[in-house]
Amino acid sequence: MTSADRVAVVGTGLIGTSVALAAARAGALVTGWDADASVTARAAALAKFRAAESVEDAVAEARIVVVATPIPTVASLVAACLEAAPDAIVTDVGSVKTALVRDVVAEAPEDSIRRFVPGHPMGGSERSGPEHASASVLDAIVWAITPHEASDPEAVDALEAWTASLGARPVRLDPGRHDRLVAFVSHLPQVASTALMSLAATEEAGEPDILLLAAGGFRDLTRLAASNPALWSDILLSNQVAIGEAIDLYIERLVRLRDEIVGGRGGDVAETFDEAKRARLRLATKPTVRAGVAVLQIEVPDRPGALADLTAVLGGGEVNIEDLQIVHSPEGGRGTVHLTVAADAVDRASHVLDNVGLDPLRLA
Amino acid sequence: MTSADRVAVVGTGLIGTSVALAAARAGALVTGWDADASVTARAAALAKFRAAESVEDAVAEARIVVVATPIPTVASLVAACLEAAPDAIVTDVGSVKTALVRDVVAEAPEDSIRRFVPGHPMGGSERSGPEHASASVLDAIVWAITPHEASDPEAVDALEAWTASLGARPVRLDPGRHDRLVAFVSHLPQVASTALMSLAATEEAGEPDILLLAAGGFRDLTRLAASNPALWSDILLSNQVAIGEAIDLYIERLVRLRDEIVGGRGGDVAETFDEAKRARLRLATKPTVRAGVAVLQIEVPDRPGALADLTAVLGGGEVNIEDLQIVHSPEGGRGTVHLTVAADAVDRASHVLDNVGLDPLRLA
Repeated sequence: MTSADRVAVVGTGLIGTSVALAAARAGALVTGWDADASVTARAAALAKFRAAESVEDAVAEARIVVVATPIPTVASLVAACLEAAPDAIVTDVGSVKTALVRDVVAEAPEDSIRRFVPGHPMGGSERSGPEHASASVLDAIVWAITPHEASDPEAVDALEAWTASLGARPVRLDPGRHDRLVAFVSHLPQVASTALMSLAATEEAGEPDILLLAAGGFRDLTRLAASNPALWSDILLSNQVAIGEAIDLYIERLVRLRDEIVGGRGGDVAETFDEAKRARLRLATKPTVRAGVAVLQIEVPDRPGALADLTAVLGGGEVNIEDLQIVHSPEGGRGTVHLTVAADAVDRASHVLDNVGLDPLRLA
Repeated sequence: MTSADRVAVVGTGLIGTSVALAAARAGALVTGWDADASVTARAAALAKFRAAESVEDAVAEARIVVVATPIPTVASLVAACLEAAPDAIVTDVGSVKTALVRDVVAEAPEDSIRRFVPGHPMGGSERSGPEHASASVLDAIVWAITPHEASDPEAVDALEAWTASLGARPVRLDPGRHDRLVAFVSHLPQVASTALMSLAATEEAGEPDILLLAAGGFRDLTRLAASNPALWSDILLSNQVAIGEAIDLYIERLVRLRDEIVGGRGGDVAETFDEAKRARLRLATKPTVRAGVAVLQIEVPDRPGALADLTAVLGGGEVNIEDLQIVHSPEGGRGTVHLTVAADAVDRASHVLDNVGLDPLRLA
C-alpha cells in the first residue's frame, strides 16, 4: 500500500468531489464528508466514495486528507483533521495561504503542524456543487504546493507526488510568494474590474445614456465584476497585505499615466503603452501554447449560424481554437471575431479561411 | 438636389472610404482626397469616387465635407475645408471633441465656424486602410453629433439627417459631455488595462513565473493593452481634462476598496461587489438586445471541431450568438464557454444544447 491508498475529502462540493473522483481513478479508497449531509449523500452517490458520519469518521483511516471548504471554515477543519487523523498529511485547496497557515498554527496541536502542507489547485470552475465535479477538472492544472516553515519535507514531497498522480502539475511556492503572485494576477484584476463597474454605475445615475456609448473594451474590463460577492469578500480579506500592496502599486502606475497624460507628455504615454503592448503580446493565452500563438481577425455577419460556419471550417481543417472573442460593433449587423490559434497552426487556419472567402487579418 | 447630393471625404482610410461608400449608396456624388496620393487612388478605385488633386479640389463643390484623418491633423484640415468650400457643412470623425472645437475656432475664419458641426461615429474597426472599408461599417452605429456654441442649428439638423440617411443612428451631445462620457466608457478602460499590464510586466522582471498563474480574468483585463500606442497617445492627450478626472475618480474607488479590504470590513467589500455585479448584469452585451440577455455556461473538450459542434447546434436551432467567451482552465484538456443569447432565445438555446447532451448552466 502506498501513502495515497486512503484519501479523505472534507467538503464535497465541486473541487472536493473532483479530488475524490481523481483519487479513485488513481486507485485510492476514498471517504467523504460535508457539513451538509445531503451534499455528502449526493457526492457519495456520484463519486462512489464512502459517506462518513463526521469529520472524525471521514479521516480516521486516511493517509491524505483534503479540506475543500469555504475559506472561513478551513483553518478549524484542518486543525480538527490533524487531531483526528494522527498519521495523515492534511492539505487544503484555498486560494490564499499566509493567513491560513497562521490560523492553523494557532489552532492545531503543535506536534501536528508538520503534517500540514497547504495547497491551491489553480483550476476549477465557476460552477459549484458535486453535480459538476469531474476528475478532469484537475487534469494538467497548476497545483500550487505551499509548505510553511514547519512542514515536514517528506510530507511535502509525498503531497507533490500525489497531486501529480491525479494528473495535476505541482508547483512549489512559499505561502507569502504564492499570495503575492495571486494578488497581482488574480485578485487585483478582480478589484480593478469591480472598481470600474462600480464607478460606471455611479456615473450612470447622473448620465443614464453613458452605457449606450460603451463598446467591447468596457465589456472586457467589467466581465469579472459579475463574480460572486461573498466569495470574493472572503478571498480579499484573507489576503489583505498582498492585495493592499498590489492595489497601491496599481494606483502608482495609474497616477504616473495620468500625470503623463495631463502633463501632455505624449512620448512618455506612447512608451508606457508600447511596453504594455509588447508584454501583452508575449502573454500566451494558455500555458500549453506559450511557445507562441497568433491572433486572426475575421469579419462575420451577425446572424444565426455565422459562427457555426466559421468554426466548422476550422474544425474541418484540424485547427484547434485556443481562444475566440466576439468583438461587436456598437449595434448589430455584423461582428468581428478575434481568433487565437497556436503559431504553428496559423498558416493552416489562414488557408482554410481564405478558401471560403473569409479574409482573415493577422493581428499578432 | 438635396443638401447631401455632393459629399467630399478628406482622408480616405477605413472610415473615410466607408463614409464615401455609404454616401454613394445613398445617392450622392462623392469626391475624395488623402494626403497620401496612392491611398487616394486605391480608395477611389474601390469606392468609385472622383480622386481629387488637392483639398481645395476635393471640397470645392461639396455640400457636406467629412474630415477623417488622424487627430493631430484634423483641426487644420477642417479650417482649410471651411475656407475652401464656402457653403459646405464641415464635420469630422475624431474620438475627442472639446480640444478640436477650440483649435478650429482659433484657426478658421470667424464667419465660417457656424458651418462646422463636429461628429464621432462610434463604430469602425481595428483594421485600417481603404481595403477594409465598407458601407456597412456605419450601419446602425451610434454617430455622436456634437455641435459647439456657434454651430448653425440648421447645419446641425442637416448633418443629423444625413448621418441617418447613411444608416447610422445620430445622438446629439454637447462636446464636453461627449468627451466626459467617452473618458469613462472608452478611454478609462484603455488606461486601466494598460496600467495593469504595465505593472505585471514590471513584476515579471523579478518573478518570471508570475504569468504561469495568470488565468482568464487577467487575460480579459489586459486584452486592450495590445492597442496601438501612437493612436492612443493622441486620443488621451486630446482629452486630458476629462480623462484626468475619470482616472482620479477611478483611483478614489480603488482607494475605497483597498481601505475596506485592509480594514477588514468584509460587509462593505461584499456590498461594493454586489452593487457592481448588479450593474454588470444590467449591461447588455449589445444595445440591440438591451431588453435582456442571458448567459449560458457550457463545457466543451479542447480539440479541433469542438466549438464547431456547439455553434452548429445553435445555428441549426436558429439561435443567434450575441457573445461567446472561451474560459480556459489554466492548462488545456477542456474549456468552458460562456455563451450570451437574447433572453427570449435562452429556452430554445438550452433545449437544443440539452438535446445533444451539452448540459448548459444558466449564469445570468
